[in-house]
Amino acid sequence: MAFGIGSGLMRLGMVSTSDHSSVVSMNLFVALLCACIVIGHLLEENRWMNESITALAIGLCTGIVILLTTGGKSSHILVFSEDLFFIYLLPPIIFNAGFQVKKKKFFRNFMTIMLFGAVGTLISFGIISVGAIQLFKNFDIGSLEIGDFLAIGAIFSATDSVCTLQVLNQDETPLLYSLVFGEGVVNDATSVVLFNAIQNFDLSHINTTVALEFIGNFFYLFITSTMLGVLAGLLSAYIIKKLYFGRHSTDREVALMMLMAYLSYMLAELFYLSGILTVFFCGIVMSHYTWHNVTESSRVTTKHAFATLSFVAEIFIFLYVGMDALDIEKWRFVSNSPGKSVGVSSILLALVLVGRAAFVFPLSFISNLAKKSPNDKIGFKQQITIWWAGLMRGAVSMALAYNQFTMAGHTQLRGNAIMITSTITVVLFSTVVFGLMTKPLVRFLLPPSKNFSSMVSSEPSSPKSITIPLLGNGQDSEADLGGHDIPRPTSLRMLLATPSHTVHHYWRKFDDSFMRPMFGGRGFVPFVPGSPIEQSVHQWQ
Amino acid sequence: MAFGIGSGLMRLGMVSTSDHSSVVSMNLFVALLCACIVIGHLLEENRWMNESITALAIGLCTGIVILLTTGGKSSHILVFSEDLFFIYLLPPIIFNAGFQVKKKKFFRNFMTIMLFGAVGTLISFGIISVGAIQLFKNFDIGSLEIGDFLAIGAIFSATDSVCTLQVLNQDETPLLYSLVFGEGVVNDATSVVLFNAIQNFDLSHINTTVALEFIGNFFYLFITSTMLGVLAGLLSAYIIKKLYFGRHSTDREVALMMLMAYLSYMLAELFYLSGILTVFFCGIVMSHYTWHNVTESSRVTTKHAFATLSFVAEIFIFLYVGMDALDIEKWRFVSNSPGKSVGVSSILLALVLVGRAAFVFPLSFISNLAKKSPNDKIGFKQQITIWWAGLMRGAVSMALAYNQFTMAGHTQLRGNAIMITSTITVVLFSTVVFGLMTKPLVRFLLPPSKNFSSMVSSEPSSPKSITIPLLGNGQDSEADLGGHDIPRPTSLRMLLATPSHTVHHYWRKFDDSFMRPMFGGRGFVPFVPGSPIEQSVHQWQ
Repeated sequence: MAFGIGSGLMRLGMVSTSDHSSVVSMNLFVALLCACIVIGHLLEENRWMNESITALAIGLCTGIVILLTTGGKSSHILVFSEDLFFIYLLPPIIFNAGFQVKKKKFFRNFMTIMLFGAVGTLISFGIISVGAIQLFKNFDIGSLEIGDFLAIGAIFSATDSVCTLQVLNQDETPLLYSLVFGEGVVNDATSVVLFNAIQNFDLSHINTTVALEFIGNFFYLFITSTMLGVLAGLLSAYIIKKLYFGRHSTDREVALMMLMAYLSYMLAELFYLSGILTVFFCGIVMSHYTWHNVTESSRVTTKHAFATLSFVAEIFIFLYVGMDALDIEKWRFVSNSPGKSVGVSSILLALVLVGRAAFVFPLSFISNLAKKSPNDKIGFKQQITIWWAGLMRGAVSMALAYNQFTMAGHTQLRGNAIMITSTITVVLFSTVVFGLMTKPLVRFLLPPSKNFSSMVSSEPSSPKSITIPLLGNGQDSEADLGGHDIPRPTSLRMLLATPSHTVHHYWRKFDDSFMRPMFGGRGFVPFVPGSPIEQSVHQWQ
Repeated sequence: MAFGIGSGLMRLGMVSTSDHSSVVSMNLFVALLCACIVIGHLLEENRWMNESITALAIGLCTGIVILLTTGGKSSHILVFSEDLFFIYLLPPIIFNAGFQVKKKKFFRNFMTIMLFGAVGTLISFGIISVGAIQLFKNFDIGSLEIGDFLAIGAIFSATDSVCTLQVLNQDETPLLYSLVFGEGVVNDATSVVLFNAIQNFDLSHINTTVALEFIGNFFYLFITSTMLGVLAGLLSAYIIKKLYFGRHSTDREVALMMLMAYLSYMLAELFYLSGILTVFFCGIVMSHYTWHNVTESSRVTTKHAFATLSFVAEIFIFLYVGMDALDIEKWRFVSNSPGKSVGVSSILLALVLVGRAAFVFPLSFISNLAKKSPNDKIGFKQQITIWWAGLMRGAVSMALAYNQFTMAGHTQLRGNAIMITSTITVVLFSTVVFGLMTKPLVRFLLPPSKNFSSMVSSEPSSPKSITIPLLGNGQDSEADLGGHDIPRPTSLRMLLATPSHTVHHYWRKFDDSFMRPMFGGRGFVPFVPGSPIEQSVHQWQ
């Protein structure tokens, strides 16, 4: 074992006097992050902009300035590394997603979300792969193998929902928000799992055995990763409940929650599972149990600290992508044939549009068949919004493309260079053009407090970027009532009619009678409800 | 510019499938951090133990286990890197120190703290250097130059106050706490500044010009670093006040505070200043101005998030030192002559003891001369406590020793290997033996609520590890009253009699009439005093 990380961490040595230029880069980067936050705040009221586009624009501008000052040699101050991305930037984003998600909405729409996230991504993957194989025949873009085409399918199936979530409002359009959000997370996981499966399998000879093995592997990863995340979350809840850290130190509780969450991610990587899924479910379990076992200060701290880490990581990624886009080395290969590059990018964009349309509308139809209440059905305007919301391609696509088509950040082969530049083009174009149009489109299709006023939940309205996923008092107690007081039909009929509701009902019973007494959770720890902070959190943030 | 960090960060690539062993290491390390927190909590009531010793012990045990399982090849899973230490671990610790320090106590004892921290460290440095030159003549320990001996002086003048501060209680012994704490911070900065000065100067020909240049350089570093920190803090306060981020997002405020603090540290490194001093004063200014300009949630979050980061970094360091201590490579050189190694270590320990005694008692005497109130004087028992509290040598010493005596974590020369192993021995011995004896010694010399009950301030008592440095309502208002109501002698007489009080008086006037209206701060932002969270923070943490 032993020396891997050591040498890795060592090489981080930036402040040693020998390496003064990297101190300059680091200063510039931190200063740019600050600038993104300030400018993003100033532009918040703007009709078109959002934080992602701001960071991307600042990154691009910085890239241009560096390109000019260094005389065209280099445009970025950081080489994009998928390891940095997957180890340090993605975990806090996904963990926070799980931690802040409105669990009830998420699980009520669980089937639809899984349908969109898993099945939809597979459909999109299939269409983009087949489309790329068919359409790229006519282009002379170097030697791409079957594995490369499948990888292209996985790369361009990975949506980037960060941008959209900044536009959608969890209170105004809760159904839409939970669908897009949940789909985004499951999609992230699915495409990464797909991508890993593609890289690990010998795909030159596809037959039934390989296909079955592939599917089995996929489900194995999905289930074990989820289980690991749930176990890690439960373990943290149990430890904190048993030791009752609140007796002494908020710091210890917060530290333990952070470390356990990170440990779950690293453990998943250790066992070659999907860290993304693991850490997402760890976040959900932690918000359901662990978060209720800690002191009030810890609750406020964890809620905002995780959100802040996720926020900074997102800005970091977009800044990074913006800066990296102008890297001269990659563009050198394609500068001879600009038409070809534009062609490839356009085809990929078209495939993305078609691939997404091909599953959003059919799957929405299927999903609507299972729903009885008209409020739960997905209207056509909402379907268009969902379709549009998933068109952006972001950092996950970039990271996967770098993983597939570069060696240590550098491109040697022509075909690989074209794929990298095309990915950059698709990411930039989709984020900027589709991103800019999202806010107006959502306003046009779904004017606030008209279509969806019936769906606004009863809880106090909260400002946009901070959600109160866990304090929602009105939310779960309603479900409690529903479970105990109102007479219900027999379980079998219920299960056939509204399967997810029944599952939820049994889950509540199991949770209340076994899980909560064991692992804590709201109402099962010595805690004064309605304590000053709980109110003030509503009031202040 | 450009590629330095990139390649550095890139090399962090631990999760790439090629480098699975580093994932194992990382898992082990994170799991050990969790174990340290849990075990440290369980042992908290213990008479002897504290968190540092626990982490050190766990690190040592893990080292032994790894040594056995790898068949004596390797004992650590991370190579100690002073860059990792100085860039990622030290900044949060020092920033948090500045952020949580009781500013009034600190500035009231400012002269004494500077006397101990700066002058005292210089005296200790001189004694250890000269002592080492004289005593190591008799040993055949390879080729050490004059620069090496001066470096030894700087290395062993760097105290480690983390351990002591876990034992001293800010409420029971406020004077002692602020002295030891303040001295620790100034000492850290002084020894690092000294060390850098030694490395940068050609010390083979010492004459008056070089000495004067050295001293000038020292003061230049001290003053510019402090100014940079103050400026960064004020800038953050101004930005947040002007933009009034609270209107929208706690996340943005917290992110901006973190990034600005880190930026101040990196800027200091950029200009070859002392990042430690900069980030310490940035922390003080941020807690005085910026912290009052943000939302209630941000206040709770920043307070605990910074404390948690600092806490984890401390445990990380001790775990690291414990694991690294058994590294077989360094001990190979000294295994031929164990007696020599023991001799060198004993001499260094003795020099540490003498060097500290040589300034604590005389400087306390000088400091007492300037004080009128017997409460402000430093009694003999307190002097012994201060002396003892600064005997521990920790991560700063290790980091400096590695910097001076190794190339990229490896030792080639025999003299260097002996110095490294001696440093490890001194650090382990002083932390464990002196550390174990600190708690009983403090209890014996200063039984709680007897000697110091008169010094306990009027503010509500707070639990040990979390201090409320900024909410202290009773504290500053008392000074306000003193400044306006009670008739005072003329300023000149005041200045002669109690200089620091007068400085404080003028500072308050300047602060109230100019600084606070400009940069915010308590009472100068739209904020309801006595709001729910403010009470609950007292109540809950």
